[in-house]
Amino acid sequence: MGGAERVTREGALSERAERVVARSSSPYYAGWKEVARNPYDKKSNPEGCIQLGLAENMLSVDLIEEWLSVHRLDFSGYPGGPANVHDDAPYQSNHGSLRIRQAFAKFMQKALQLRTPLEPEHVLVGGGCSGLIEILAFSLADPGQGFLHPSPIYPGFETDTLVRAGTPLLLVPGKSADHFAVTRDDLEAAVAEHSARGLVPRALLLASPNNPLGTTYTHEQLSSYLAFCKARSLHVISDEIYAASVFGPPAFVSMLTVVEESDKETREFAREHVHVLYGISKDLGLPGFRLGGMYTRNARLAEATSAQLRFCSASSVTQRLVTSLLEDEAFLDYFFEENRTRLRRRQHLLVTGFAEAGIQTVPANSGLFVFANFRPFLETLDEEGEFAFYMELLKEIRINANPGVACRSPEPGWFRVCFAAASDDALEAAVHRLKDFAERTRRRD
Amino acid sequence: MGGAERVTREGALSERAERVVARSSSPYYAGWKEVARNPYDKKSNPEGCIQLGLAENMLSVDLIEEWLSVHRLDFSGYPGGPANVHDDAPYQSNHGSLRIRQAFAKFMQKALQLRTPLEPEHVLVGGGCSGLIEILAFSLADPGQGFLHPSPIYPGFETDTLVRAGTPLLLVPGKSADHFAVTRDDLEAAVAEHSARGLVPRALLLASPNNPLGTTYTHEQLSSYLAFCKARSLHVISDEIYAASVFGPPAFVSMLTVVEESDKETREFAREHVHVLYGISKDLGLPGFRLGGMYTRNARLAEATSAQLRFCSASSVTQRLVTSLLEDEAFLDYFFEENRTRLRRRQHLLVTGFAEAGIQTVPANSGLFVFANFRPFLETLDEEGEFAFYMELLKEIRINANPGVACRSPEPGWFRVCFAAASDDALEAAVHRLKDFAERTRRRD
Repeated sequence: MGGAERVTREGALSERAERVVARSSSPYYAGWKEVARNPYDKKSNPEGCIQLGLAENMLSVDLIEEWLSVHRLDFSGYPGGPANVHDDAPYQSNHGSLRIRQAFAKFMQKALQLRTPLEPEHVLVGGGCSGLIEILAFSLADPGQGFLHPSPIYPGFETDTLVRAGTPLLLVPGKSADHFAVTRDDLEAAVAEHSARGLVPRALLLASPNNPLGTTYTHEQLSSYLAFCKARSLHVISDEIYAASVFGPPAFVSMLTVVEESDKETREFAREHVHVLYGISKDLGLPGFRLGGMYTRNARLAEATSAQLRFCSASSVTQRLVTSLLEDEAFLDYFFEENRTRLRRRQHLLVTGFAEAGIQTVPANSGLFVFANFRPFLETLDEEGEFAFYMELLKEIRINANPGVACRSPEPGWFRVCFAAASDDALEAAVHRLKDFAERTRRRD
Repeated sequence: MGGAERVTREGALSERAERVVARSSSPYYAGWKEVARNPYDKKSNPEGCIQLGLAENMLSVDLIEEWLSVHRLDFSGYPGGPANVHDDAPYQSNHGSLRIRQAFAKFMQKALQLRTPLEPEHVLVGGGCSGLIEILAFSLADPGQGFLHPSPIYPGFETDTLVRAGTPLLLVPGKSADHFAVTRDDLEAAVAEHSARGLVPRALLLASPNNPLGTTYTHEQLSSYLAFCKARSLHVISDEIYAASVFGPPAFVSMLTVVEESDKETREFAREHVHVLYGISKDLGLPGFRLGGMYTRNARLAEATSAQLRFCSASSVTQRLVTSLLEDEAFLDYFFEENRTRLRRRQHLLVTGFAEAGIQTVPANSGLFVFANFRPFLETLDEEGEFAFYMELLKEIRINANPGVACRSPEPGWFRVCFAAASDDALEAAVHRLKDFAERTRRRD
């Protein structure tokens, strides 16, 4: 819609709001609408559309239900009893109660496998990590500045940093030949390229484990990134929200562990520059609860974050319920282990099925997705070819996955395929449909 | 802190984040810190600082506790039973479940005393009204544009619209002689003045009932504002979050009622331009729950709002609990009536006590506060004089109230004094201290 038309339309929005609306009409969301319109169900709609485009873990929610059932007596009428509403009704600290910050600090230590406990005073709890990432975009970048970020990317990051805060992701493209891993040299090259376009990097944003690749970073890689950021005085934002969803070797390494094992100068740099995100949306499968946290020792950033959390703090009721859950460390140990077993089985089912269909995936050990190579099925190896196949996948094969363009994939034809939101039946049906499709395609050639 | 210093400081934030931090260091927050440091308690700290600076209603939380206790059996272990976590765990609609939107539409109709039911499809529920106001600032204004707003103001509005969205409030100052009521002529004059400074109005933002005045707008006033906005194609944002906290005549009138009783052309204008906010923070005294809603028939705005609610949607657990509460209409009727009785008594206690101390207040019938004239106690009738008295009030009389400057009062020396967050004891002690102070001051003169 052009500017002239917008000015005359009744009840017109701001130009920035029009950009927000335009963004939510992207193909990435078209697939969600198709799934909502015609959802697969083994019995009632076996030809329906299967959702493999959502990074959601529905594999272990029965364990949460079980926990709630066992703790029934402690939650009579309200978490901990109705009298608690006297404490929960009023305005709360923007960045979470002291008690949830204590519980969250221990939760992070467990999930991130840190040797040293985190100080609760450096943990801020808010209403989910999307809000926290937007806060970091506002807090670390001014107009004309951006966040370096390896591509392919988790599609939501760009929405989080760009739509309102206006902070662009300065992409650092990987290559499929290297399984999309990026080196310090790639980071340096990206800085040169983006700076030439007038965009100044202020931070390196990492999804660690990687989303959409489902891979973990090695100590060596993280160490080289940290050295790069130190040399250039860049902030490091390490989003480790899948830390406890690592179900195969190599083991997960937190940026905080790398910091701890660094020299004194690097540790001092990290005090002000390294910020780590974590939450309950992925590793506990509770995105609907809207609760996430950030660890930072940068006091000024903590202050700015707390002030902005007025817009997106965690509900007191939810804080109370989640605090009880997080304080049950034996349950968390059990949940994490059982959940990893279930994820491993699911991912194996998908990867072996895809291999049988001749679809390669980036070797992965974590997360709720794989990055799959559909290039053999593309008519043309470009964005148009990818979009045509995306529509074929959605409308003919009736599978929603995230096309490369949504992930800013450096090479067209790679799709993010999620394996933990669908039912067993749905995942098996999806693999079956893709095998059929691959066979038909081969016969056609 | 100057720009040069900031550039060299380790782990520096963005300039916009520094502005956020600077804002939260304002005197308005200094009082909160003093209350936190030395809180009044009748027994343990009778000389402590009394909080009359927080628009929070703690008068009726016992009724919520009672409701929760009675509904104990329906909330075994989890709102509605542990099995519900299967529905609550996953990602939810950004703008609330269908069920809470239905309940919220009825809740709004009751609180706003609307004759016609609201369609749930035009109600968006999010994680509190602050986030929604920020969304409106992003969605209706571009840089260089602002929201007209009568002053004195609710201090939070400016934080909500300005700190991140950069949307200034274009103040329309009232006069104490008129009890700070503003007319259509005042609005026209303000447009001329702000336009001359290059600031284009895009909306009229109203707190209705008025915060900090504790007054309601008449049908005639609202009608003239609506006509003004129609003539200038401005959006109307009516924040009616205190609608059910009107405890004396004249009765509350919603902007939606004014629209309904307007001519056809105005009703058509209103479809795209009138947006009404409501929530549970004030009228149910549950700000800690973080849940608020907006009614708008502007489909494009609804789309933009939903997209931005990704940053601040309401927790699914909280949605479920609040839905049950809102669906109990008999309880809401009982709560609203009892709560109004309690507010009336409290406000009467404060206003009569202040009158005895020779402190005038703007005649008020609603809200959790009065706007009080402390000008007789000021050494000089300017911002410095006001600040000196604010510090005397805080440190000597040990009362925290919101100084005029925080409310952008057109005349210095007027303070917002809140009467529903403190205990009965605390409010009585505050009135007693002020009477003493007034007497000492008179003797001193």
